Amino acid sequence: MIETPYLLFLGDAPDALAAKVAQGIKDWRPENAVGQFRMEGCKADMKLPDMTLAEAKAAGAKTLVIGVANRGGIISQAWKKVLVQALEEGFDLASGLHNLLRDEEDLVAVAKACGRTLHDVRVPSVKYPIANGEKRTGKRMLAVGTDCSVGKMYTALAVDESLRKKGAKSTFRATGQTGILITGGGVPLDAVIADFMAGSIEWLTPDNDPDHWDLIEGQGSLFHVSYSGVTMALVHGGQPDALILCHEPTREHMRGLPGYKLPTLEAVRDVALELAKVANPDCKVVGVSINTQHLSEEEALAYMAEVEARLGLPTIDPFRQGADRLADALLAM
Amino acid sequence: MIETPYLLFLGDAPDALAAKVAQGIKDWRPENAVGQFRMEGCKADMKLPDMTLAEAKAAGAKTLVIGVANRGGIISQAWKKVLVQALEEGFDLASGLHNLLRDEEDLVAVAKACGRTLHDVRVPSVKYPIANGEKRTGKRMLAVGTDCSVGKMYTALAVDESLRKKGAKSTFRATGQTGILITGGGVPLDAVIADFMAGSIEWLTPDNDPDHWDLIEGQGSLFHVSYSGVTMALVHGGQPDALILCHEPTREHMRGLPGYKLPTLEAVRDVALELAKVANPDCKVVGVSINTQHLSEEEALAYMAEVEARLGLPTIDPFRQGADRLADALLAM
Repeated sequence: MIETPYLLFLGDAPDALAAKVAQGIKDWRPENAVGQFRMEGCKADMKLPDMTLAEAKAAGAKTLVIGVANRGGIISQAWKKVLVQALEEGFDLASGLHNLLRDEEDLVAVAKACGRTLHDVRVPSVKYPIANGEKRTGKRMLAVGTDCSVGKMYTALAVDESLRKKGAKSTFRATGQTGILITGGGVPLDAVIADFMAGSIEWLTPDNDPDHWDLIEGQGSLFHVSYSGVTMALVHGGQPDALILCHEPTREHMRGLPGYKLPTLEAVRDVALELAKVANPDCKVVGVSINTQHLSEEEALAYMAEVEARLGLPTIDPFRQGADRLADALLAM
Repeated sequence: MIETPYLLFLGDAPDALAAKVAQGIKDWRPENAVGQFRMEGCKADMKLPDMTLAEAKAAGAKTLVIGVANRGGIISQAWKKVLVQALEEGFDLASGLHNLLRDEEDLVAVAKACGRTLHDVRVPSVKYPIANGEKRTGKRMLAVGTDCSVGKMYTALAVDESLRKKGAKSTFRATGQTGILITGGGVPLDAVIADFMAGSIEWLTPDNDPDHWDLIEGQGSLFHVSYSGVTMALVHGGQPDALILCHEPTREHMRGLPGYKLPTLEAVRDVALELAKVANPDCKVVGVSINTQHLSEEEALAYMAEVEARLGLPTIDPFRQGADRLADALLAM
């Protein structure tokens, strides 16, 4: 686990999109962020107090989280100056960058000298077991998508928030680097060794109270040929009681795969449910989450009404409408 | 690739079953084995010439392959003496043991001093790409099972042998350590990082002649909750033109998963085919391979006749009958 709260490092972000990790933390776990650290020329702003390292330390921050993508895939010398100083002032560092903190000799040396920890959340830090398939207590929801990047993380976070507002017990379970940084823990599933994928998800979602929901962030798609194995491990390792289908209706082909059309929601529903029933015969598909960011309000409402009528399942856009109807569907089970 | 031919190290095998890797090499690639090396007390016999290291070297052997499971999971001092001497006499070493050769300091030191290579075939030695899903030339068959260890490797090897006897072009493509040792190369899929699983299978089965068949060894099962993600990556990364269903009819539950019943052949056929069609819309299920080792001849024939009638597909036991009918089904496509 990464120690919270965080100071969010926005660096010299060229635009708001480059700081989407910081935005995710600000949106979903504002209590985890005491402030932001911006360098000269930073074009992103989380509307959090700008703090020096010393001010953030005084405010209780334990970890400097790199909330921004690095340009050109390298950690620049300008960034390094801040990161080294943060270690010296007693912060741990956490990052989801491809360029690992642990591969930077200077950071490793300073962290060691100062007794601080470097968290590279893209790299598993746990020796996961092989899945045993044993029935677990508590309830689990898995978000399954027609494609990658259609809003599975957002959906799981929104359902988690809605359940908690309703007074229900729930935990968002991160399976990718952004989700891990948002919550401070999880499994970087795409970096796990094949034999241990399903076991890592069993480890992530252990026995719990009978009325507790784990909301498991999905990855990839059963219909995405590059990553379907990762999705499959979630369907079986997650042993879900409920599936929520996630879709982005304007996409013309599978992400990164020109020539591969998106499957229908019906196809995803049927295949995912049949496979999920292997691990949990009582699993049900309970709702649909549509990412309508590329539709107008009117188009979005019409599209969702059509899907809701066609599939007979509550259909919402969690960004436009919140996820209360999906949370209600889970609570009704 | 591991240099062939081999000298097969049987060590102090307590019984024939412990030497099943050596048996696989002897059965499927006899041209890869110039002889066997047995220590005192060895209870296994491949009916190959017993050779000293020097004799094997003179006969052209390039690699000493550990063809036997080690007792207690460690490489004993008695084995070490032979392995060190083999390195000194100019052999590479190859092993599929969990206890890696590269974790033994003495072997590493001697190999380095002698300029020899240690092959741990459980560990990937290639940086695989992420799958791109692009259509490849040539034809590919994937063996898919109702469970783990039902005869998928045996089936793919038998079909390969039959195709080649018929004068067709084919290559067995290994995806597990035994298959890799048998043929000298392949992908140890269960040890590949999740994101690269499907890409490793694309790498293993590249563009080929239009009339060439890659026979891809299957792993796990889409219905085995511990390993289904690995199977899924084969279905999509392999981009198969043909699937062969593999089954062992006497098993009472999924391997290692008490309480999980085996799926029907029909369920495997339908789910595997639907998912395979994502990568190759023309994929077909062409036959069934039954492992009838626990049935009498009469029971076996009756069972296979029943399956053949029910599924309308050629159904054989490659061990009892050879795989000619499955090879014919591929050639008829």
